[in-house]
Amino acid sequence: MTDPRFAVTPEPPYYAVIFSSRRTPGDHGYADMAEDMERRVARVAGFLGMESVRDAEGFGITVGYFANEAAIAEWKGEPEHRIAQNEGRRRWYEHFEVRVTKVERAYGGPAKRTGEPGAG
Amino acid sequence: MTDPRFAVTPEPPYYAVIFSSRRTPGDHGYADMAEDMERRVARVAGFLGMESVRDAEGFGITVGYFANEAAIAEWKGEPEHRIAQNEGRRRWYEHFEVRVTKVERAYGGPAKRTGEPGAG
Repeated sequence: MTDPRFAVTPEPPYYAVIFSSRRTPGDHGYADMAEDMERRVARVAGFLGMESVRDAEGFGITVGYFANEAAIAEWKGEPEHRIAQNEGRRRWYEHFEVRVTKVERAYGGPAKRTGEPGAG
Repeated sequence: MTDPRFAVTPEPPYYAVIFSSRRTPGDHGYADMAEDMERRVARVAGFLGMESVRDAEGFGITVGYFANEAAIAEWKGEPEHRIAQNEGRRRWYEHFEVRVTKVERAYGGPAKRTGEPGAG
């Protein structure tokens, strides 16, 4: 499985931060910021990967995976990310929800594991 | 915040099942199945809501929210959902990842809460 849209994560437990968002119309510097944030989060110790998708309506889900709570806290407090968070509230997002979760178990298919219970 | 794309979830803890997937080309009954599954999951006791997005490349993330593990188990074993899972492995998905997570904390913005730490 080499599809780069999927994060390659270790065996649980680890953390997943689910960011669901509705964009405002127009770019207003959003694309540049998003690219910069992708580079910056990758430098956080304990960052494991991310998966992100947005549709033509402007609704998106991004999931960031982290080894532990310390990595999440570091990323939340990263100076440029703090600025981005503020700009996000001010002009990029009509609404968003952040959910910090602990991954308890995980499995993939069909290329990765075909013997998973329920695979038939 | 009345945007129907967002799930309205209670205070944590609750569970989130993150389903990341890459579709195969073509429909092959996928859209009808997806609509049917949305109706069926809503009948599961302890189902809280879902958020779902897929882009033009066929990469998508769906997050289902559940009150407890029993609700997740009931949904995983629902007869028509089991058939859909098998068909998904057989023809609808090139690859998918399922991560079962426990939501530890959550917050929203900007419409819902503007006094959140980090809001500036």
